[in-house]
Amino acid sequence: MVMATIRQRIAGRSLTPGSKLPSIRGLAGTLKVSASTVVEAYERLVAEGTIFSRPGSGFYVASQAAPLSLADIGPKLDRAVDPFWVSRQSLEAGDGDLKPGCGWLPPSWLPEDGIRRALRKLSRAAGPALADYGSPLGLPRLRQLITRRMAERGIEASPDQVMLTESGTQAIDLLCRFLLEAGDTVLVDDPCYFNFQALLRAHRAKIVSVPYTPSGPDVELLGQALAAHRPRLYITNSAIHNPTGATLSPVVAHRVLKLAEQFALTIVEDDIFADFEHTPAPRLAAFDGLDRVIHIGSFSKTLSASARCGFVAARREWIDNLIDLKIATSFGGGRLNAELVLNVLSDGGYRKHMDGLRSRLSRAMFDVTGRLKTLGIVPWIEPQSGMLLWCRLPDGVDAAEVARAALAKNVVLAPGNAFSPSQSATNYMRFNVSQTLDPRIFEVLRQALLEARRSC
Amino acid sequence: MVMATIRQRIAGRSLTPGSKLPSIRGLAGTLKVSASTVVEAYERLVAEGTIFSRPGSGFYVASQAAPLSLADIGPKLDRAVDPFWVSRQSLEAGDGDLKPGCGWLPPSWLPEDGIRRALRKLSRAAGPALADYGSPLGLPRLRQLITRRMAERGIEASPDQVMLTESGTQAIDLLCRFLLEAGDTVLVDDPCYFNFQALLRAHRAKIVSVPYTPSGPDVELLGQALAAHRPRLYITNSAIHNPTGATLSPVVAHRVLKLAEQFALTIVEDDIFADFEHTPAPRLAAFDGLDRVIHIGSFSKTLSASARCGFVAARREWIDNLIDLKIATSFGGGRLNAELVLNVLSDGGYRKHMDGLRSRLSRAMFDVTGRLKTLGIVPWIEPQSGMLLWCRLPDGVDAAEVARAALAKNVVLAPGNAFSPSQSATNYMRFNVSQTLDPRIFEVLRQALLEARRSC
Repeated sequence: MVMATIRQRIAGRSLTPGSKLPSIRGLAGTLKVSASTVVEAYERLVAEGTIFSRPGSGFYVASQAAPLSLADIGPKLDRAVDPFWVSRQSLEAGDGDLKPGCGWLPPSWLPEDGIRRALRKLSRAAGPALADYGSPLGLPRLRQLITRRMAERGIEASPDQVMLTESGTQAIDLLCRFLLEAGDTVLVDDPCYFNFQALLRAHRAKIVSVPYTPSGPDVELLGQALAAHRPRLYITNSAIHNPTGATLSPVVAHRVLKLAEQFALTIVEDDIFADFEHTPAPRLAAFDGLDRVIHIGSFSKTLSASARCGFVAARREWIDNLIDLKIATSFGGGRLNAELVLNVLSDGGYRKHMDGLRSRLSRAMFDVTGRLKTLGIVPWIEPQSGMLLWCRLPDGVDAAEVARAALAKNVVLAPGNAFSPSQSATNYMRFNVSQTLDPRIFEVLRQALLEARRSC
Repeated sequence: MVMATIRQRIAGRSLTPGSKLPSIRGLAGTLKVSASTVVEAYERLVAEGTIFSRPGSGFYVASQAAPLSLADIGPKLDRAVDPFWVSRQSLEAGDGDLKPGCGWLPPSWLPEDGIRRALRKLSRAAGPALADYGSPLGLPRLRQLITRRMAERGIEASPDQVMLTESGTQAIDLLCRFLLEAGDTVLVDDPCYFNFQALLRAHRAKIVSVPYTPSGPDVELLGQALAAHRPRLYITNSAIHNPTGATLSPVVAHRVLKLAEQFALTIVEDDIFADFEHTPAPRLAAFDGLDRVIHIGSFSKTLSASARCGFVAARREWIDNLIDLKIATSFGGGRLNAELVLNVLSDGGYRKHMDGLRSRLSRAMFDVTGRLKTLGIVPWIEPQSGMLLWCRLPDGVDAAEVARAALAKNVVLAPGNAFSPSQSATNYMRFNVSQTLDPRIFEVLRQALLEARRSC
């Protein structure tokens, strides 16, 4: 009780960092407990770092009472559907577990032979490739290749506008460090990739969301949100949207950029699913020419998630600041991973592999869609490409309950509200068709749906 | 001039974010310039995102006028000796450049054969090792091996207290995210590893420093600094201190930990030079048992900087929060690098390589010390082990001037004030003995010293 009282006063700011706590005798009298009870509570608060003692003077509130816990920031969400649920369950699953909710391909769908060839080639590379730090911008030949690949999607950039990172996520994180102050407002789609929310919480940003339609964000509501909240950034996927699999239309791209100009909005376009496309869809960065749009990419989804490598393409004058931030927070880049990615991409086998992969994904999309429909699970749209399928469950069924029931049977699902800042996707679920081919999944889903219906 | 006026008003907060700018006509009158000059300035300020227009209403200050630039935070330092100077010059140098100031070994001193063997072995590994994300904590067998290696240095930890990271720097960055609020005070040594300052600037922390002695921080001044500034964290190296090469003594370790307890201080002990030691020196984490000390390690200095892999060992109850922060800001860990490091460390060749490396470093330390003395450059102490040699230049010589003169001849040096938060190391310089064996370096140094003396 003594500890709870002190904690409450600290949380409620009636005791601020550095201020002196009540004397032991005084607090014992106030709370009608023995002095030894107060001594014991103070000692425990010292041990946990909440307060500290100054010999001969008394006890004081430590400079920061509670370390940052992302679980405590923002609205308190049901753990089953918070933005970490899907990632932690997916990442913690064993190599053989069933995880139709996870956001990446099974390793056997990735270019394993190309990676093996690249590793053998690397084992014969010169010393610096094996043992030295990468340069601040990252491997020049890989940055050149990245600009050529961007050009195929209509995005013009020079290699010195491209900085390699350890991942697409690190790229966005560095941009948030560069562009955001704590308390700034950031706009995301509803639904959006759950980790955007987790990342923005880590930056103590305010999150505002705008409903996503099959052709991009709802432009009417986007304009209203910009006028009302003046967000500093908008983080989105364009070509293949996560979790919906939708594709931005040229008309919506134009309108989004007009609004961005009007409201001095900077846009981060996360394009990590680019290689899944059959034909290139519009990119905001292509329309805009890397003026107010920053383009992010990665090789985790189509090449290897084990050899992490991502990049950011932005205005040249921002790159120096991003380099400083990268060095300060992660020092040199991972040269080995960049060399490996370059080897795989330069290998003629990669394009052939991707052609085969796209066909395989189209077939899986068709099969999984059909099987889900027999359970009353209906796709929101039929995606043009990729692995993501955003589905509506039968009426009244809570996806979080279905996900919890499936998890008890070692099947990781991705309930809709993990993606929805407004928590308006209770009835939705994201499937990854490449991870949803095992017949056991549909039996577990069928039973979990039955259980969830019974309880509603 | 119009742009400068507006920028000054924003910087001085007479124009705050969201507030309306003076009308074009009004400002033109005040500044005695033409309306078209103001229009042009406003358009450029819109283009750079400082202000935005609301059609029919006027111009407004954008929600954040200036993005974070680390160069602008804290005291404005001479670019030649700011905390980024050494890292950027070292990382940007070509593979064959001379860089006695850089903080790592030449690739040929690292276990290249072991890395080549590990790459070939990896090319035959199962799919998930090549293509899947790592688990949130990271490869279990590597974490087990790390705890065994920590035990050899007297630090007891279980594998679930160890989380793998992409680098030692990322480990400290995650801890700063976890433990710091903007404006919190952090204590470092003077001199200290320059990137601690860069990292803390990125977290907008206040930096307080305490002089480092040959046996650890000055305990008297440490106590005064803790009482005066109540820092939240103390970040240090113990076994081999960067830049001085000094080693913490058991007595100082004890006193530091007593003060830490008294002032509820958390200590981050960055131990990335561990494998260079001939015999284990005292670790704060060994004395403390990972209670208020957090232990950081990495393999970038002794195994490979290209295959980045580091770790943090801390209280078990903090690890879950660190995992959430790692996922939010970089998603899954780099499994491939961890597999590679595990392969090299498990290979019998690694210990043999390190035995040879330690002897080679001792010889280099002896040689370089002798040659520097002939130039009047005198070591502050004779380090017990490692590659770092902290030296005093001849009286009155400014190390920054020497470093600038040497850079003009493509030799990267590490001037003392890059390491000194109090800027009190004007006369000092850090050498890396493994990178200081080329005779051309001493000729360049001799000339640079002459030039610097002439100017003083």
